[in-house]
Amino acid sequence: MTDTGKVDIVVVGSVALDTIETPVAKRENLLGGSVSYACGAASFFARPGMVGVAGSDFPAEHIQCYRDLGIDIRGLQQEEGKTFRWSGVYEEDMNNRRTLSTELNVFAGFKPSLPAEYRTSPYLFLANIAPELQLHVLGEVQNARFVVADTMDLWINTARPALEEVMKRVDMIAVNDSEARLLTGEKNTISAARAILKMGPKYVALKKGEHGALLFHAGGVLIIPAYPVEDVRDPTGAGDAFAGGFIGALALSGSTDPSDIAEAMLRGSVLASFAVEAFSLDRLRTLTRAELDARVAEFRKIIV
Amino acid sequence: MTDTGKVDIVVVGSVALDTIETPVAKRENLLGGSVSYACGAASFFARPGMVGVAGSDFPAEHIQCYRDLGIDIRGLQQEEGKTFRWSGVYEEDMNNRRTLSTELNVFAGFKPSLPAEYRTSPYLFLANIAPELQLHVLGEVQNARFVVADTMDLWINTARPALEEVMKRVDMIAVNDSEARLLTGEKNTISAARAILKMGPKYVALKKGEHGALLFHAGGVLIIPAYPVEDVRDPTGAGDAFAGGFIGALALSGSTDPSDIAEAMLRGSVLASFAVEAFSLDRLRTLTRAELDARVAEFRKIIV
Repeated sequence: MTDTGKVDIVVVGSVALDTIETPVAKRENLLGGSVSYACGAASFFARPGMVGVAGSDFPAEHIQCYRDLGIDIRGLQQEEGKTFRWSGVYEEDMNNRRTLSTELNVFAGFKPSLPAEYRTSPYLFLANIAPELQLHVLGEVQNARFVVADTMDLWINTARPALEEVMKRVDMIAVNDSEARLLTGEKNTISAARAILKMGPKYVALKKGEHGALLFHAGGVLIIPAYPVEDVRDPTGAGDAFAGGFIGALALSGSTDPSDIAEAMLRGSVLASFAVEAFSLDRLRTLTRAELDARVAEFRKIIV
Repeated sequence: MTDTGKVDIVVVGSVALDTIETPVAKRENLLGGSVSYACGAASFFARPGMVGVAGSDFPAEHIQCYRDLGIDIRGLQQEEGKTFRWSGVYEEDMNNRRTLSTELNVFAGFKPSLPAEYRTSPYLFLANIAPELQLHVLGEVQNARFVVADTMDLWINTARPALEEVMKRVDMIAVNDSEARLLTGEKNTISAARAILKMGPKYVALKKGEHGALLFHAGGVLIIPAYPVEDVRDPTGAGDAFAGGFIGALALSGSTDPSDIAEAMLRGSVLASFAVEAFSLDRLRTLTRAELDARVAEFRKIIV
């Protein structure tokens, strides 16, 4: 692992081998996990460094995929044992999926360890891992300009105090409708998002999947629609591609004004729209900057 | 009924007395029905004339509500018997509702009959009624500039040939995700909407409730977000308020270019956002044009 120099963004999360069945096809041992999608998407705008753990069974071709995308992998730990595996099936309406199996394997003992060069990274995305681990990373990257954290119902239910501490220390938390309700007890998701703002983060990204997202901040709310994708082949990783594309675009802009944050979210939405057009990171691998810029420009034109 | 002169828009649909329970409150014998919401919303931009049927039990105060809103009621038939009644309950997540009872009453024998002055109306909204009745009205209003039709799964399943004939003769059809799938057999709603375009209408409005709408036309697609409403008290009629506000704004603009149509949909979205803030037409009754214009301006600013 011969990467050198600084990274613009650190992403901490899962590295996975996915087995996925969609109405289109079934594929096994795909490169997956939140850091893979988020770093892949971020790499179009800035240099991401990944922090995660893979097993000794992790294929060399997946490492090569990371390298091809320009992802710094000095923070990728490789340990004796099997890589985290996830298997799921998507229904005809691909908004609905069923998990068939989850094998944590080496991910069960994951303790994020950051290379020294990562600790001065100005941008940090804490993907969906235990809040205690997110806090550990926050202790190692102390002077980041902008930190985004993702979470899930499991942590809201089982690790609430640590999650509340995370929310006090990050700039943005990303939640979906049901997570927002669960966190606050508010039934209306907009009321819920405003209540989450009071828990600490400067921004709340309320994710609505294929319907886009709302960005809440002290000054109000901004609406970020989703790019309409006709040929969805595999929705896995869309949320992480969105977050990675977002923080990459934010790193490129260097601004943290609400309007620039919303603009970066729009780019995140476009990265997600490409990610779902193929399994795994396959579409991100072939995507060119020209194609990306063209879709961003088209997207802007079709929003009323 | 002393209305005189021409109307800008004719709306044909149901007049109802609703009994509705939401997490906020339970209310009985409310003024409801698609023509009530659609005409109420349209009235902010143009003069709507309603075609519908009420029973002899229809309260005079509801007639007065129509008049207060500036709705022409020469096309409102009043017949011996009971008014159409609908009763439903909304869950905590108000996207989900359960119908408790439907009593068609005088609506069962509804035969739209248009006053002569309505037949030259330049705009026509065929709300959700049997396609055969929609065809009958299309025969009476022959030179409309723009016609919108709504429908539902019942008619797709039971009256498909008539519905297909409607689609060939209107400018726009409004469908939600499941109706679009049911009409075409396409699983992806965007593919479905494009397939519906080939069935005849120049525009397909794909309604996504609180997530907004997509407008499909030969030249592509436009995204119309929804205005985020924090204090939803009763979602009933949101779709009809959207359609009525839309066709009202279209009548006011006089244009049928895709960009003006999308702009009119944005105004429809704002009318719907007001309608759901209170039961029945209560919020539309108190709404001022200044409040409406202020929200339209704010909406435009918060869309990225």
